[in-house]
Amino acid sequence: MPPAAATRVSVAELNRFATSAFCRVGLTEADAAAAADVLVTTDAWGVFTHGTKNLRNYVRRLKAGGLRPNGRPFVAAAGPAWAMVDGDAAVGMITSIFAMQTAIAKARESGIAYVGVRNSSHYGAAGFYAWLAAREGLIGLSMANDIPSVAAPGSRGAITGSNPISYAVPAGRHRAILLDMSVATVAGGKVYAARTRGESIPANWLIGADGRPTTDPSGYPQVGALQPAAGHKGYGIALLIEALAGALSGAAVTWQVGNWLWDDGTKPTGHGAAFIAINVPAMMAAGEFTRRIEALVDEIHRAPRADNVDRLYVPGEMEWERHDRAMREGISLPSDVVASLREAAELSGAPLPDFPR
Amino acid sequence: MPPAAATRVSVAELNRFATSAFCRVGLTEADAAAAADVLVTTDAWGVFTHGTKNLRNYVRRLKAGGLRPNGRPFVAAAGPAWAMVDGDAAVGMITSIFAMQTAIAKARESGIAYVGVRNSSHYGAAGFYAWLAAREGLIGLSMANDIPSVAAPGSRGAITGSNPISYAVPAGRHRAILLDMSVATVAGGKVYAARTRGESIPANWLIGADGRPTTDPSGYPQVGALQPAAGHKGYGIALLIEALAGALSGAAVTWQVGNWLWDDGTKPTGHGAAFIAINVPAMMAAGEFTRRIEALVDEIHRAPRADNVDRLYVPGEMEWERHDRAMREGISLPSDVVASLREAAELSGAPLPDFPR
Repeated sequence: MPPAAATRVSVAELNRFATSAFCRVGLTEADAAAAADVLVTTDAWGVFTHGTKNLRNYVRRLKAGGLRPNGRPFVAAAGPAWAMVDGDAAVGMITSIFAMQTAIAKARESGIAYVGVRNSSHYGAAGFYAWLAAREGLIGLSMANDIPSVAAPGSRGAITGSNPISYAVPAGRHRAILLDMSVATVAGGKVYAARTRGESIPANWLIGADGRPTTDPSGYPQVGALQPAAGHKGYGIALLIEALAGALSGAAVTWQVGNWLWDDGTKPTGHGAAFIAINVPAMMAAGEFTRRIEALVDEIHRAPRADNVDRLYVPGEMEWERHDRAMREGISLPSDVVASLREAAELSGAPLPDFPR
Repeated sequence: MPPAAATRVSVAELNRFATSAFCRVGLTEADAAAAADVLVTTDAWGVFTHGTKNLRNYVRRLKAGGLRPNGRPFVAAAGPAWAMVDGDAAVGMITSIFAMQTAIAKARESGIAYVGVRNSSHYGAAGFYAWLAAREGLIGLSMANDIPSVAAPGSRGAITGSNPISYAVPAGRHRAILLDMSVATVAGGKVYAARTRGESIPANWLIGADGRPTTDPSGYPQVGALQPAAGHKGYGIALLIEALAGALSGAAVTWQVGNWLWDDGTKPTGHGAAFIAINVPAMMAAGEFTRRIEALVDEIHRAPRADNVDRLYVPGEMEWERHDRAMREGISLPSDVVASLREAAELSGAPLPDFPR
């Protein structure tokens, strides 16, 4: 939902800019294009918090060396249906694409595969990698850990990361079902925005300095922590992600993870991630699974709706509609993203895209 | 939390009774003991809604034939890291143990394995099967679909089942981390209990006849539907479970699933389930994973707490403490469970346990 002052740019033009910025700080052309594709696809979905808005942060860290421009993720250990990937402190998007491709290849052999990742960093939108599997007809799961920002029930401060988790399911004539969520009730950005506007917040978003739910965001993020979504459920899922993306992968866990924005830019952050791919066509007659998912989606679309509700959506459907419009009409960038792109241009030396109004 | 009128019974005695009841309606001694173990372990965890309270319902359906006393789950198709199990309309607990054991064996070969289940029925507590994996040092996941009872954001009625999902992670000197949750904000039983007491409910538990959130439970369950936990997040996870436990397994999905309590008792319900096992020892040096999980649990136990909070728990910790007490002192059965056991005794002809007060 871009504000009125949105600036329109074509997907191709934004891709060219992000690719150029990554190239100018040392990535190969192929790596730069791949990382740019993740960010621009995310913008096209309308998920601007995880798209090219962060380009400046990746560029800054690549220049400082904590992200290695010439880092090459590699398989450190593997078995028939699993692999452990060392990210070599490369850009998280490069490592994550490599890891999910490894999971897809192994799932094609074995039916399902798990790939754990260590020595990675912020990987953008979790959903991109789940979608890599779904667009090839597999079910994909993607998850990552991060520095603690989310409370546990009863805790005074943060216990787990906001730990994104995503899945994508191929859906035949429908676009893939695609859920991308964090384990917190809401993103910290929403709390911060309420603070900026001087507004109070719902009682299930934040805990205050005393560990109790608060409707006052004025101390955030220095004070308090996000509440887990649905209390012990979100907390429980957060710990599953710590187990699969952190502990099992050999990555940094909770307070060992580096803050990719604020910690010493010369040091790797040590983030972990995990990817699972399930090779649907090995398990069901051709087309049978997608027919069943199509029927499920159709059933949801036809289901009775509450008053004043126009449509029922399946996860990802809104994002795909934004994506298709973006491909046709370009992306309407919110002003904070444009400001951030200007910074990325200055930091990298890449010429800003031409923004037709 | 049993009421004052709780009736105490030893784990062994309750096991004998449940085994005897299953035997008398046609299960083999081995199947009866296995199914009883699931239900009694669940009671020992204090999860009385999913334990021997349901014995009468299984017995009734076994007598009617919709659950087949001599049903034998079998592997209908398989690959290196996956299998599809047909439950043969056997008791869901028997089929689910068989399916998770299949997943564990395949994960030992390949690292990870997925097993889809069709032609199953109500399987009790999802967590039992996840725990089967964890007690052998693997990470386990367990999930199942069910008849729709949970809304989607904007829907007027139910869209997905309450779809339980569970995971268990071996934790070395700590008990396994064990989360067992449904995708609804709360169990329908809690809404019904509020109705019985004439109380209003929080606004995020239920939607009413118009599809809008309501604090009035008086029409439930005839009217309205449960709300998904954390809105689109719970709904999104529900659809992942429909995909893995319903669509991919070839099971019945949403409205095709039979109501195991109220539908024609002579017909199979067609429930689906899915199990995933991850063979931790194949992927990490011996003890390394559990040391990392131990450190995570220790960190949580030491973390600062909100005022008046005595302890921070990891998922499953409360249940394990109840379990250990139950093994020592017996299980204190709430009166509704005792009443239900009396019915199971009448239906099956098994002699009721001797209840020392």
